Amino acid sequence: MSDITQVQADAVLAAARDAARGTETAMNIAVVDAGGNLKAFTRMDGAWLGSIDISIKKARTARYFDMPTGAIGELSQPGGPLYNIEVSNGGLITFPGGLPLRGEDGTVIGAIGVSGSTVENDHTVASAGAAVELQGAARP
Amino acid sequence: MSDITQVQADAVLAAARDAARGTETAMNIAVVDAGGNLKAFTRMDGAWLGSIDISIKKARTARYFDMPTGAIGELSQPGGPLYNIEVSNGGLITFPGGLPLRGEDGTVIGAIGVSGSTVENDHTVASAGAAVELQGAARP
Amino acid sequence: MSDITQVQADAVLAAARDAARGTETAMNIAVVDAGGNLKAFTRMDGAWLGSIDISIKKARTARYFDMPTGAIGELSQPGGPLYNIEVSNGGLITFPGGLPLRGEDGTVIGAIGVSGSTVENDHTVASAGAAVELQGAARP
Amino acid sequence: MSDITQVQADAVLAAARDAARGTETAMNIAVVDAGGNLKAFTRMDGAWLGSIDISIKKARTARYFDMPTGAIGELSQPGGPLYNIEVSNGGLITFPGGLPLRGEDGTVIGAIGVSGSTVENDHTVASAGAAVELQGAARP
Repeated sequence: MSDITQVQADAVLAAARDAARGTETAMNIAVVDAGGNLKAFTRMDGAWLGSIDISIKKARTARYFDMPTGAIGELSQPGGPLYNIEVSNGGLITFPGGLPLRGEDGTVIGAIGVSGSTVENDHTVASAGAAVELQGAARP
Repeated sequence: MSDITQVQADAVLAAARDAARGTETAMNIAVVDAGGNLKAFTRMDGAWLGSIDISIKKARTARYFDMPTGAIGELSQPGGPLYNIEVSNGGLITFPGGLPLRGEDGTVIGAIGVSGSTVENDHTVASAGAAVELQGAARP
Repeated sequence: MSDITQVQADAVLAAARDAARGTETAMNIAVVDAGGNLKAFTRMDGAWLGSIDISIKKARTARYFDMPTGAIGELSQPGGPLYNIEVSNGGLITFPGGLPLRGEDGTVIGAIGVSGSTVENDHTVASAGAAVELQGAARP
Repeated sequence: MSDITQVQADAVLAAARDAARGTETAMNIAVVDAGGNLKAFTRMDGAWLGSIDISIKKARTARYFDMPTGAIGELSQPGGPLYNIEVSNGGLITFPGGLPLRGEDGTVIGAIGVSGSTVENDHTVASAGAAVELQGAARP
């Protein structure tokens, strides 16, 4: 199985941070590994304190189901098939801003979560991080 | 009082797993006993990590109210009589995939919870587990 | 990276259960994967309810530090270098009964946790599970 | 009030990481701000999963009381004046590896927490991070 490396996680953080600067937003950016465990995190100066936990939960949620957080949120609305799934797993965040990270063979090797602005901006910044090309490395 | 045995729980897991293979899905499958406590669990290779907790919560929810989880979900919607019941008991899951398990006299002796695909598939696999004939054994 | 498979986890559970029967104890037995997430669990009939959580926490603790839980407990005593480490990670269990599971190349691919009797018996049963030969398989 | 900046937090992480490489250890390294909230985090490849939470708790503990974590641990032993303080604040870690970070005027502007090896190594790596000269910036 492939897992994200520290070098890769740093590259994802850097790409997302650059994108945040481009949109003049102050973001919390989290990366989790293939097991859903925190791998790297950064909070830009002035970013919302409440978004620390949200960014981490977005990353975890994206890895827990291997899909964008926003896709889960479409299913968890009142009347939807996954209504109130958010109470599971110690709290999931299901609005946009979390994306799986895939290695070169398409395997999910981690996830990124971004929080600090509108969900559109959060998603844009997460996408910049997820666009970094990652080659899955063997865990040491 | 009757309670599910380990042999029975294993039979329920096996039947559900066979059904999951039949639908080509990778499921998390949990069985709780008459007290709502975890009795048996298995995660198929590649199954969503976020569904571990959901499968257990579905099983617990089904036993806590002795009804299919989906039936509770119909009552917990906005404006419904059990609105947001999901926040109780450390988190309930009220969409389909959890079913009570009954002994030969109809008494609830446990419950099964399945998570890993669409709620329709989850329910199908849970139903396969719940269809196993169980003879309630005396609690030790 | 290698991760434990469902077939392997079942083999570990079966070996541990056989050892529990040999000592005439009723055990809770948990297996977690390389990411520390629950992979398989079984509770023998009559096993302590309070040991469900303990067995899972033992498995997680063993994987979180890649060592036997009892080795951590020796360091976490009053005056020891890791005093009260147990309050971290949502609760660690540091007395014997948790062991890492290693693949054929020695890599940790998961862990087993056993609870239900004396710590000596718990450790004996966990050891039987950890003695199963495991060949790390690629995560699907 | 002065608070640590992202640039400073990154410098602290980098210095600590270099020291970890020097001791050939794989560390989890966390930095919190003046408010005790997570500012930056990195996990080196192969570092213990259980040390993610511990490194964050060490950093928080060091900032919560503006002293090295090990100093609190001397007071929290059985019979000591702060016996079992570890259960407060959602869990404190009071063995070495957490240190306050001070600005040029001596004000505490954050803290570092390191976990992944012996407490001696953890403390050495945290000290390398805390040795970075920091000029407190105005909180935005």
